[in-house]
Amino acid sequence: MNCVLCHPNVEKVIWKNEKLRVIQVEDVNFPGYFRVIWNDHVAEMSDLDDEDRRMLEKILIEVEKVIRSEMRPDKVNWAQFGNMVPHLHWHVIARFKNDSHFPESIWGIKQREVNSEQLAAWQTSADRCAEVVREKLKQLF
Amino acid sequence: MNCVLCHPNVEKVIWKNEKLRVIQVEDVNFPGYFRVIWNDHVAEMSDLDDEDRRMLEKILIEVEKVIRSEMRPDKVNWAQFGNMVPHLHWHVIARFKNDSHFPESIWGIKQREVNSEQLAAWQTSADRCAEVVREKLKQLF
Repeated sequence: MNCVLCHPNVEKVIWKNEKLRVIQVEDVNFPGYFRVIWNDHVAEMSDLDDEDRRMLEKILIEVEKVIRSEMRPDKVNWAQFGNMVPHLHWHVIARFKNDSHFPESIWGIKQREVNSEQLAAWQTSADRCAEVVREKLKQLF
Repeated sequence: MNCVLCHPNVEKVIWKNEKLRVIQVEDVNFPGYFRVIWNDHVAEMSDLDDEDRRMLEKILIEVEKVIRSEMRPDKVNWAQFGNMVPHLHWHVIARFKNDSHFPESIWGIKQREVNSEQLAAWQTSADRCAEVVREKLKQLF
């Protein structure tokens, strides 16, 4: 099996349990981008049993709540595609009206340049966000 | 308020309750594209209370299950962005290796042309899928 989510190269894991891991995606254009990756190689949400799915959903909501409180984004985007890697993983992304792609999805067409001061400010709050996610999930689970 | 999801023009609603509606999106390139729209003008998943969110998630899973059994897609894609319309709505989309954008998201770069016979075959199974979603949700709720 050559699945990159079964055998990740480098990941910034901020919290994990036996079922899944939460990583901070290092994307210079989108600080505030987190990924929740199911550990087992399953493809779809309906491959999970109800208990596992509820746990995953609870974690996704906690990540969103921390993004909202720490980063005050204009919108939070959620997506799970898995077209390139059919291994269940969720993208949760803080979006800002002045980010490079807004209102397009981050996989769409770039709309503008963003200056480095703005990117650095978002990165600072994203790093704090990652710390708060870690603390929050430690408390909850 | 000019929100197009609060005041939709034309929608093919296949099932609804007092909280949300499930529509079949009429996209010729992506038959098997459903949208689950929260009726109230809320922006984020974490704006819903736990009971409402569980109901929404249950419906999303049922839509996915029917898409899988009726259309046998290569992958199911889920997304909620709301960058253009900050009104909570989910996209659930059957994806096929030979569709126009695979493995890109449907909001990404087109990869190929798809012949009309293939599109018509997907449309037929998508229409059956819509009927099964309707029946299934009627039974469950």
